[in-house]
Amino acid sequence: MAGAILLATGPWPAAPWIEAIRAGAPQRALQVWPDVTDPAAVSYAFVWKPPEGVFARLPNLKAVFSLGAGVDHLVFQKNLPDVPVVRVVNPDLTQRMTEWVVLQVLLHHRRQRAYDVSQREGHWRELPQPAAADVRVGVMGMGVLGRDAAEVLRRLGFRAAGWSRSPSQVAGVESFHGAAGLDAFLKRTDILVCLLPLTPETRGILSMPLFRKLARDGALGRGPIIINAGRGGLQVEADIVAAMEDGTLGGASLDVFEREPLDPASPLWRLGNSVVITPHVAATSEPRTIVPLILDQIRDFEAGKPLENLVDLTRAY
Amino acid sequence: MAGAILLATGPWPAAPWIEAIRAGAPQRALQVWPDVTDPAAVSYAFVWKPPEGVFARLPNLKAVFSLGAGVDHLVFQKNLPDVPVVRVVNPDLTQRMTEWVVLQVLLHHRRQRAYDVSQREGHWRELPQPAAADVRVGVMGMGVLGRDAAEVLRRLGFRAAGWSRSPSQVAGVESFHGAAGLDAFLKRTDILVCLLPLTPETRGILSMPLFRKLARDGALGRGPIIINAGRGGLQVEADIVAAMEDGTLGGASLDVFEREPLDPASPLWRLGNSVVITPHVAATSEPRTIVPLILDQIRDFEAGKPLENLVDLTRAY
Repeated sequence: MAGAILLATGPWPAAPWIEAIRAGAPQRALQVWPDVTDPAAVSYAFVWKPPEGVFARLPNLKAVFSLGAGVDHLVFQKNLPDVPVVRVVNPDLTQRMTEWVVLQVLLHHRRQRAYDVSQREGHWRELPQPAAADVRVGVMGMGVLGRDAAEVLRRLGFRAAGWSRSPSQVAGVESFHGAAGLDAFLKRTDILVCLLPLTPETRGILSMPLFRKLARDGALGRGPIIINAGRGGLQVEADIVAAMEDGTLGGASLDVFEREPLDPASPLWRLGNSVVITPHVAATSEPRTIVPLILDQIRDFEAGKPLENLVDLTRAY
Repeated sequence: MAGAILLATGPWPAAPWIEAIRAGAPQRALQVWPDVTDPAAVSYAFVWKPPEGVFARLPNLKAVFSLGAGVDHLVFQKNLPDVPVVRVVNPDLTQRMTEWVVLQVLLHHRRQRAYDVSQREGHWRELPQPAAADVRVGVMGMGVLGRDAAEVLRRLGFRAAGWSRSPSQVAGVESFHGAAGLDAFLKRTDILVCLLPLTPETRGILSMPLFRKLARDGALGRGPIIINAGRGGLQVEADIVAAMEDGTLGGASLDVFEREPLDPASPLWRLGNSVVITPHVAATSEPRTIVPLILDQIRDFEAGKPLENLVDLTRAY
């Protein structure tokens, strides 16, 4: 008999996930946390930000599938069982992230928010516009998401570079890596895109000392811009506020926050026209695209093939 | 002795063009309209929206170079001399146009203006978001600019199609052409990007009858969206206002207008959040990138090579 699935979606509504699992694997038993009626039957856990205790009492668990991009929600979990952890890698998620990153880079580059103000005032006013070839975009985190965004930004004509733990190879995108390469990468970067995983090393990396190392002589004619769609834990929000107020930064686009939803009282909402806030929507996991990919993996696994896209827990991503 | 240049920049400031010409061809005589001190010496006219009479009394004119994208400003000119007319084709202009088009498509697709409102209200609210693969973008006008924009939109995952006078070939982009192909093209289009040249056939094409033929069953969940960066003469602004008010259109981005600058009293400024107005800045001609390209063409021409990028006046583009 096919192993049962345990679903635990944490803060997300479970209904669309249940629907997608029932549609894709109608013959397979499904138990939805916290109603774990038969823990011994559970072979596979589908989880996002699982509450404590989800993994207790699952003697026959074979694999854990993370439903969203990033696995920090699992890596920092205590009592993680000693079974393979599989991350979501799917083209839909990558495309959505690249859309959001490209939109935000262009929005700052083309001064859309300033034109929005002119529009509200009924004011016809042309602003200076550098060419993309004179603007240096730097992508921190050159995994699947970072590489795809860097490739499109380069296609649009930006001077693109990537920084990651190990060297990356994307045609036309300059590669920097490791702690030794970080300062040189920041020094040549007018627009910083952060798609890093959240690990003990990267927590709080987007802070005042880093902002001060970004390029200040760029063609944009303003302070440097940061764009974060990685994790809220990568950024120090008090430093972003201070850096916008003292001009260390010229703008920001933030999709993720230290605490979500962002507190209505947070000063981030009111940093003005050059700061864009979106509610963690850059790359939303769509049950109807992700569930079939996971179910295919399970079928292959049960047919004896190895699982793909495994998380290396020693690197925390 | 090298033939003299006549510069007539119409509504544009002449100074940066003079500077670029002097820097690139210091040995060549330059006369700036209306100070045409030696008309018989003029071999080349560099023009944008030239006032009437510019081409009179130039007995030795050899070629006319149009300084911006589009040549309707010349084609509709009376008394155009019988010499080759050369359009600007340069990668900088193409990149700028693609940037603007991609920004506007993504801005509507990702509902940035709605998120802007949420931000101003300090309101954390996620909106439904279709995948690019479920959104059909159609590009009218598949010249150099249209093809480049379509290619990037396809790379981002949109279902892209092009419509033009003759069939176009861009990998992954469906081709429609001619009057016979127009209705089928419109029927499958959720977001319409217009980069057509302005000719007697295309004048006023963006009108209510066309808007009513666009897709209304799309994944965007609103009426269709039009994006015009071609020429203001392509659009009937009263119809855009009516179509936004009665829901025939769900949104628009307009960079060009029937009369520019757009009248502060125009209702277009105040159609609300789903209409983006920019002041004809999508692809601005930069003297320091365009002038060297023209001067290179002149040097080749004087060395006996044929002129490239000639305008076919019988097609008006």
